[in-house]
Amino acid sequence: MKNILVLGAGLSSSYLIKYLLQHAKKEDWKIIVADSNLELAQKKIGKSTFGKAVEMDIHNQEKRQELIKNSDLVISMLPATLHFIAAQDCILYQKHLITASYLSEEMKSLHTQALKANVLFLNEIGLDPGIDHLSAMKMIHHIQSEGGEIVSFESYCGGLVAPEFDDNPWNYKFTWNPRNVVLAGQATARYLEAGLLKFIPPNRIFSQTKKIKVGKNNTFESYANRDSLSYIDPYGIGSAQTVLRGTLRKVGFSEAWNCLVKLGLTDDSYSLPQTETLTYRELMSAFIGGANSENLEKKLADFLGLTKASKLYKKILWLGLLETNAIGMHNATPAQALQKLLQEKWKLQKGELDQIVMKHEISYKLNGKIYYENASLIVNGENQQLTSMAKTVGLPMAIAAKLLLQGKIKARGVQIPITKEFYEPILLELEKYGVKFI
Amino acid sequence: MKNILVLGAGLSSSYLIKYLLQHAKKEDWKIIVADSNLELAQKKIGKSTFGKAVEMDIHNQEKRQELIKNSDLVISMLPATLHFIAAQDCILYQKHLITASYLSEEMKSLHTQALKANVLFLNEIGLDPGIDHLSAMKMIHHIQSEGGEIVSFESYCGGLVAPEFDDNPWNYKFTWNPRNVVLAGQATARYLEAGLLKFIPPNRIFSQTKKIKVGKNNTFESYANRDSLSYIDPYGIGSAQTVLRGTLRKVGFSEAWNCLVKLGLTDDSYSLPQTETLTYRELMSAFIGGANSENLEKKLADFLGLTKASKLYKKILWLGLLETNAIGMHNATPAQALQKLLQEKWKLQKGELDQIVMKHEISYKLNGKIYYENASLIVNGENQQLTSMAKTVGLPMAIAAKLLLQGKIKARGVQIPITKEFYEPILLELEKYGVKFI
Repeated sequence: MKNILVLGAGLSSSYLIKYLLQHAKKEDWKIIVADSNLELAQKKIGKSTFGKAVEMDIHNQEKRQELIKNSDLVISMLPATLHFIAAQDCILYQKHLITASYLSEEMKSLHTQALKANVLFLNEIGLDPGIDHLSAMKMIHHIQSEGGEIVSFESYCGGLVAPEFDDNPWNYKFTWNPRNVVLAGQATARYLEAGLLKFIPPNRIFSQTKKIKVGKNNTFESYANRDSLSYIDPYGIGSAQTVLRGTLRKVGFSEAWNCLVKLGLTDDSYSLPQTETLTYRELMSAFIGGANSENLEKKLADFLGLTKASKLYKKILWLGLLETNAIGMHNATPAQALQKLLQEKWKLQKGELDQIVMKHEISYKLNGKIYYENASLIVNGENQQLTSMAKTVGLPMAIAAKLLLQGKIKARGVQIPITKEFYEPILLELEKYGVKFI
Repeated sequence: MKNILVLGAGLSSSYLIKYLLQHAKKEDWKIIVADSNLELAQKKIGKSTFGKAVEMDIHNQEKRQELIKNSDLVISMLPATLHFIAAQDCILYQKHLITASYLSEEMKSLHTQALKANVLFLNEIGLDPGIDHLSAMKMIHHIQSEGGEIVSFESYCGGLVAPEFDDNPWNYKFTWNPRNVVLAGQATARYLEAGLLKFIPPNRIFSQTKKIKVGKNNTFESYANRDSLSYIDPYGIGSAQTVLRGTLRKVGFSEAWNCLVKLGLTDDSYSLPQTETLTYRELMSAFIGGANSENLEKKLADFLGLTKASKLYKKILWLGLLETNAIGMHNATPAQALQKLLQEKWKLQKGELDQIVMKHEISYKLNGKIYYENASLIVNGENQQLTSMAKTVGLPMAIAAKLLLQGKIKARGVQIPITKEFYEPILLELEKYGVKFI
């Protein structure tokens, strides 16, 4: 019997644990789910006899090392900054480690030690990063194996609300970490366009958007991600003249979000005064010169260059930014105050489902001609626990774990899933779960 | 005989040291100028027999403590972060300390110790902060002593090129630390307007400007400083409905600077790649989607919404941002690359003079009526060493030093010059040097 240790039993672990428990009998696995919240871990195990819930604080070295020592493979669903604690023990006890997080510099530094211990530390095997790597590399390798030369690579991904539940003016609800959404686009975006390096500073990220068609009937918009350039080397697409990665939103989202950026409401660099009692209306008024409690509606419309009847103005209004309720937080930054409001307004309600959309667009040169290829993925959530986000993050991890324990993955050391031994079997099995590119 | 120790012999010390040497005979002073660059210190002393140049690294504790121990008063012209090193020794040996820098939290923490040692640690006694405090407090106290209640307080200051040498399209030349100019306006500005808290985020600081008239014939523009609110308590103007401090520039500067902000050229948060060989033209092109070496001029005009014939477009062009010379720096940020270019273009040439402009505008209520008062200051540089900036920073420090050693200032502990015993005698003597408010 093999022991799989899952660190962290939050929402994002639900699909992963479900898969592992379902395969436990056939694969002869025992799934140990460790979380500082025992009840949460127990809930994820349910009545399965193949699972065991354990209460564990990741900073409790004795307990942590005991669990890791007795496992065959560790899957860390912890916040990205905590992976390294587990990784060091995995070196010590020679255990495989899987995470869905971006490969950090400190994780990279363990490569030689992991090789020596003959274990795999597999990172970036969730959705984005994860499924994006798998699916893009499959396309790229296929094109290259036929003699094609990649000319352009564009890749887009977004976590959205499923169309049936898309019922607010922003066409958006939180389906993942709200803080990341509020702080998106606050660093300069870098990409390659027609062979030239391009930058988009934060003040233009949400106005320099692009329309992206997915399938016949869906058009989204995309704003540029922070760093598209770092994908060129690992993907082996040095021939590409254009390399751009972006985040997908429903059309109109970015224009409205840009209003909040212009106002200053996404700033996370300073604390507002007296945010226990400061109202949203006062906060909004503070960002518009000449505005006061009486003329705020008009001043806001003027500031945005809109009429009060416009759709865009109504979007802003709908958020409740002109209401007289207090922010009710201690020392909140503008971004934190905004996030609190958005978490109420953009809440995925009971019974509502989320949706993942991903699209790759690749142009390549073959025998002197330019060809275009694209692949799209749309995944809807199954229920409120088994969201499409939890599914597309957890499934690739779970499948990779299975393949690794079956001895079907030979890679060792610190890796990300960009080779055939990862993308072929994992994409194949993902299709069985409805995660299929078209 | 009393020993005055001046730490730092840079450009900003020139007027200060000149004053001290001129008064040394009458006041029975010896002026010790310490700098890590002995030659620089010697140059400032010149042939005066009342001065002595000493080579000293501020981090050399033995040398530093020996000099401070043997002095009666220390004037620190060091970078703001280094004052505290000298301040601790001044506590140890019970010596007065004078700086022109903003009062830091660590400096504040020495208040009780300074009181116990019966010494004065006087901060913010340069131009801005410094002369602004002295002149504003004189006006405020005068109004309040007659029963007036301050309704509005606005204060503006700028370091500019003197009109005779104002010969470039930006109407600006560097007369002080270029880095501070390039990085200005990168934090949200806070002020009070009609009783309401107001914020201006960085993306709007240079477009939300105000016209300021100084005298009959001079109109400047002003952008908001970072924190106007912190002046309310020390100035005792809690009654004011409007409190705003701003930086003065010639009209048109901010609009043009805002173009550089929009482009992303003032960003100091990341390093550009290969800035040894990257040209300014390539850099500029990188900030405009769709731009390349051929169409850059047109794309830039389109991006800015300008014609190539417009004055504003020509201002940007004049900086050399479309030239094909390499940045020639290692790991430069956009702001550093821009600064390098500006330091050539906005250089105050040999023989050219600078100018300081300051204006206070105060409204107050007296017997139910609203009155308005203003005071303006314009100071031109005398020569390239004795700039108006060095004069207006150094003179208040020097005069304060004299008054202190004459026993005419009784304040002790950590202070800023906002009381009558500072502003009355210092403003009076400043007038003799042509630093006179109208």
